[in-house]
Amino acid sequence: MSERVVVIGGGGAGTAASTVAKRLKPSLRVTVFTEFEDIAYSPCGIPFVHGGEIPRFEDLFLSTVDRYVADGLDMRMETVVTDIDLDRGLITARNEHEGFDQLVICTGFTWEKPDVPGANLEGLHYVKNIRRAMEFDRLLDTVRTVAVIGASPLGVEMAGNLGRRGLDVSFVDEGSWVLGEVLDPDVAQPVHDSLQEHGVTLRLGTRVEAFLGDDHVRAVATSDGEIPCDVAIICLRKMANTALAQAAGLEVGTTGGLIVDERMRTKVDGVYAAGDVIEVPHGLTMLPIRGLTGSHAYAQGRTAAANIAGVDRVYDPVWIPWGLVAGDYVIGGFSVGETLAAAMGIPYVLATGVGVSRARYYPGARKTHVKLLAEPGSLRLIGGQIHGGEGVKERCDFLAFAAKRGATLEDLAWMENIYSPPIGALFEPIAIAAQNALADLAAATREPAQPARAVPA
Amino acid sequence: MSERVVVIGGGGAGTAASTVAKRLKPSLRVTVFTEFEDIAYSPCGIPFVHGGEIPRFEDLFLSTVDRYVADGLDMRMETVVTDIDLDRGLITARNEHEGFDQLVICTGFTWEKPDVPGANLEGLHYVKNIRRAMEFDRLLDTVRTVAVIGASPLGVEMAGNLGRRGLDVSFVDEGSWVLGEVLDPDVAQPVHDSLQEHGVTLRLGTRVEAFLGDDHVRAVATSDGEIPCDVAIICLRKMANTALAQAAGLEVGTTGGLIVDERMRTKVDGVYAAGDVIEVPHGLTMLPIRGLTGSHAYAQGRTAAANIAGVDRVYDPVWIPWGLVAGDYVIGGFSVGETLAAAMGIPYVLATGVGVSRARYYPGARKTHVKLLAEPGSLRLIGGQIHGGEGVKERCDFLAFAAKRGATLEDLAWMENIYSPPIGALFEPIAIAAQNALADLAAATREPAQPARAVPA
Repeated sequence: MSERVVVIGGGGAGTAASTVAKRLKPSLRVTVFTEFEDIAYSPCGIPFVHGGEIPRFEDLFLSTVDRYVADGLDMRMETVVTDIDLDRGLITARNEHEGFDQLVICTGFTWEKPDVPGANLEGLHYVKNIRRAMEFDRLLDTVRTVAVIGASPLGVEMAGNLGRRGLDVSFVDEGSWVLGEVLDPDVAQPVHDSLQEHGVTLRLGTRVEAFLGDDHVRAVATSDGEIPCDVAIICLRKMANTALAQAAGLEVGTTGGLIVDERMRTKVDGVYAAGDVIEVPHGLTMLPIRGLTGSHAYAQGRTAAANIAGVDRVYDPVWIPWGLVAGDYVIGGFSVGETLAAAMGIPYVLATGVGVSRARYYPGARKTHVKLLAEPGSLRLIGGQIHGGEGVKERCDFLAFAAKRGATLEDLAWMENIYSPPIGALFEPIAIAAQNALADLAAATREPAQPARAVPA
Repeated sequence: MSERVVVIGGGGAGTAASTVAKRLKPSLRVTVFTEFEDIAYSPCGIPFVHGGEIPRFEDLFLSTVDRYVADGLDMRMETVVTDIDLDRGLITARNEHEGFDQLVICTGFTWEKPDVPGANLEGLHYVKNIRRAMEFDRLLDTVRTVAVIGASPLGVEMAGNLGRRGLDVSFVDEGSWVLGEVLDPDVAQPVHDSLQEHGVTLRLGTRVEAFLGDDHVRAVATSDGEIPCDVAIICLRKMANTALAQAAGLEVGTTGGLIVDERMRTKVDGVYAAGDVIEVPHGLTMLPIRGLTGSHAYAQGRTAAANIAGVDRVYDPVWIPWGLVAGDYVIGGFSVGETLAAAMGIPYVLATGVGVSRARYYPGARKTHVKLLAEPGSLRLIGGQIHGGEGVKERCDFLAFAAKRGATLEDLAWMENIYSPPIGALFEPIAIAAQNALADLAAATREPAQPARAVPA
């Protein structure tokens, strides 16, 4: 009898785990359970359809259920798994049992719900399922004022896009700046500017105390007064959706995510987990983190699939390149910025510089601000943040890769770069930042009275 | 008495050598000789002013002579150095001697002149000096047909830009495709398409036999018949401008460039050279190459300056990320492509893939074609070419850096990448190419009858 693989979840990790396992070992019988009607669409695109940047929700679909079936997967749509029995090797869904030889838990995340009165009112919206998003988009045509609660990455994207749509957006967060847990304040400033240019009213340093209304929300009560709203979009933290796994006896770590090893294996033989439901080690600190991107989820799913199919595969600690568009402004980074480094007590030397994305005189050239953090002494790259326009994503990917492999500011200061006016300037912004830091450090060595821009270890 | 540094040449290498030396060691007396009226402008921008992409030639100036003087440099404009006396440590210019303790030769390149009858006719134009370019631009307003001779990088840029300007452009080259010495034919194809869309007539596989006319060129005689033209723009090879240095007894290498060591030192104590006049080792083959970019010239000038100022600095072998816009299409690469690898007998495994620059459904997303070459067995990256739209430059910079540090296809297949619909797709194009190759290799291992896409070593 062929080996039975059950995958719970149809997001990035689940689709990767199931399709890759089947491709690597066609003899596997792979069954995918998902509570939703659809699979293989891009939830990350939803804010941009609301904003009108992408014309139609239908554009977000990458594939169809039929396609997965044609590829030999047993697809159980709209089917909630209600129990995992690890001892007997079976799951329960719709009151029926399904046995497995290997299991992959990809139950993803749920949005944190505000712990204040009125959190169950109608008109509080969470961005996740595409069909709900389609309904919500029609609702948006009928409203005028929107409160976006939580300056998370999704919050920033929703606020910017709804501002672009012409809605009256209040963007509410307790922090002093957006993305306060990871973003450095200097990088947040242009984000604030761009959001305000899109008509977004920033209500930072503002604590949500309640949602007000009879059946339907009509305002948010905050530490800074009432903010009227026709709808409120909740963009707080992504919580690992571990209920099912914990009920089955699997362990969660300090972040609330399931604990897996570098092969995506839980403590139980034949039971894997991947994606937003797990925690993985950070490459710099080796501390567990979670809540990464769809591309991380996909790679973790592939890792589980490889090991299930008998191809030994290890998932490395992550250096987390990240980036997003806030208003019209692109921000990104990798590993840690100053905010996180300071919070974690990680000493660093700072390298900062401003370059341009094309020759300065070429139309479309945008300033590219680079900030790198390096280990004092060795000057090994440990993190950074970049903001500007084009090229932020590619540079952050590059730097995450370079940091993982031990590159230093010295390496980056002398990196080769393409100089061609329409696509690249004489001086690469990354190299400028690294060179500035080396010059400062050299000056500090020569003239000890003048401190360089280094934060003492 | 302060140490005297003489720099011959005011291009990228010369300005870097002089300004950086003075900055690192202010006690130096630094004198710069240039035959031209101007300094610190971007010659690489000239084609794009001709094409109307950049409004004015004045935009190309980055600094002024006065600024260099204010920084303490002794600027000798429009002053041709006619002799170097290495024994006595002096140069001759305008029949006067100037002593030096250290010398930096940054005499750059001259364009190869066609070795055919009529090469001295009027109407043959070489793109180099900005004042000549300004005159030529006014002339272009009065002409209709242009022959661009030589499908070099400059030739491609000139043909595309003059086509965009609405001129009737014949683009003549002996090779079967543009940039035939370095570009792979599959990457050339979209370049051909884009140039033709800009109204450029490709005359490839066509040898120039003479320039015809009485005083002024009226046609190019070729192996494929006469091509009428009002002007001809010569875009052949960049030849190292070594006449002065060779007359002084300095040696040139196999490429025709001056020989220097990794500190930019010639064989003569205190005599350095940098920029387009020298040859440097290729990181993969360690064979000397020359004719790199302005950013390479600048870095070499900085290297010479550091060593002159007493800061020990080594210039590493180069991995040469390169890129340019051809018509509307962006191409690039690093190290070697298939054409060069085949010509040099370098065995390689091929990794190819096509991704997108943003989420597939996001407006502005462009296909990104990636081809990587890796060493058989180790799968260490040895070269590649990328084409498409946005992100080509940043990816080629990244890959040159990664190849220099020994990254493998395995590393790239599992690189982390930013997934955010407006700036990056779920799957990074580089990772797609690497994954494809690994899948092919794995299939070949499992089923030896089916060859993978590997070129046997």
